Amino acid sequence: MVRPKIILFGDSITEESFGDGGWGAALANLFSRKADVVLRGYSGYNTRWALLAKETAFGTGGAEELAPVAVTVLLGANDACLPDRSSAFHHVPPNEYKQNLHDIISFIKKRWPTTLVVLITPPPIDEDGRLRHPYGDNLDGLPERTNEFAGSYAKACISVAGECGIPVVDLWSKMQQFPGWEKAFLSDGLHLTPSGNRIVFEEVVAALTKEGISVDTLPVDLPLFSQIDSSDPQKSFRV
Amino acid sequence: MVRPKIILFGDSITEESFGDGGWGAALANLFSRKADVVLRGYSGYNTRWALLAKETAFGTGGAEELAPVAVTVLLGANDACLPDRSSAFHHVPPNEYKQNLHDIISFIKKRWPTTLVVLITPPPIDEDGRLRHPYGDNLDGLPERTNEFAGSYAKACISVAGECGIPVVDLWSKMQQFPGWEKAFLSDGLHLTPSGNRIVFEEVVAALTKEGISVDTLPVDLPLFSQIDSSDPQKSFRV
Repeated sequence: MVRPKIILFGDSITEESFGDGGWGAALANLFSRKADVVLRGYSGYNTRWALLAKETAFGTGGAEELAPVAVTVLLGANDACLPDRSSAFHHVPPNEYKQNLHDIISFIKKRWPTTLVVLITPPPIDEDGRLRHPYGDNLDGLPERTNEFAGSYAKACISVAGECGIPVVDLWSKMQQFPGWEKAFLSDGLHLTPSGNRIVFEEVVAALTKEGISVDTLPVDLPLFSQIDSSDPQKSFRV
Repeated sequence: MVRPKIILFGDSITEESFGDGGWGAALANLFSRKADVVLRGYSGYNTRWALLAKETAFGTGGAEELAPVAVTVLLGANDACLPDRSSAFHHVPPNEYKQNLHDIISFIKKRWPTTLVVLITPPPIDEDGRLRHPYGDNLDGLPERTNEFAGSYAKACISVAGECGIPVVDLWSKMQQFPGWEKAFLSDGLHLTPSGNRIVFEEVVAALTKEGISVDTLPVDLPLFSQIDSSDPQKSFRV
């Protein structure tokens, strides 16, 4: 039995997801005997660059390659850099963001029709945190991202999910339900604290479970040790 | 470019390595843009069962499958259960343990001659911890593992590495160099605390680096965002 894969595709919020308390590592730990969690996070990428990266990121797609059971797509936090502020370099307009998400989803579904794609919205932005932890020189004293603008990308992401009939984790709204979300969930106004990672983990697990993908439904590839007859172990390993 | 793999093969100390502060997650995080860290940990397994598991654990070995750059093998903590105590079920005699390690290494090297195999010895045992956190019913009041007996497996593991000419991480000795290792590194006398995980991570990174496998030597599969020309991004993605 080949172990199924769950691919995490996105920007730095995905790339850093195997750090301390990270949501990717937590998924890998949850599915430790059931699925390989494959990290395809590219720090700083917007959807325009993610589109250019997709063939390499998702592998050769050779005939022998098993379709992943699921792919998470978490993009938009960089697209949502304001076009007239210090990180304009990353900006992608909302309409193009939507189209790029559609193109990424189409690419995945065309290659792997059975694969569940789960969209994740960008998280909210703590503007104060961005000013305290700017990326490089931010001389104009204005945050390069605002929560309101990030929210418009979150809404665009949700509408793409609706148009494609796929699940979406609305991180932007979910996090803001908690008082003090700005510092509790975001380490620098944008990236996730361990508590912020925990929310992503829980929401992704809930979305996967709702679609029938969970530790209860995925098989183990090899017997649990408690199932092994130590006097005749080969018996337990026969398929 | 297909991203290289590092496979972690072993028992619960590998299976749990993507938990909080885990050494597997830390490796995945370190190599986040360079290599896939693939979890093949099987809780409770000894080398006898690992031998029966190896074909499934290491995949089909199809022609299109890229040889992993490295495989870590961390086994012996279960073999080293004493044959006359409560977890005798897991016990494998030292000579058979050595032969089984040889067979596992041969299997990997035959399939993938270029792959670096790194042996890791079982960690030391805190017998007090084992009595406080027994597995199931331990009615005789004696630890099912002792540090001395685990040490004989560690020595056997080191001698196998020498016979095969491959690197070995001597976790059993390394951990005991630190005063208070019993509680600092082991959560239940056997499994690893975050500090214990940190040592495994650092030692594995050192062993890989010594053999030329590091973040400095492995290429990225896609450009870093700082290398992308936002006015002509395609240029950066041409291979």
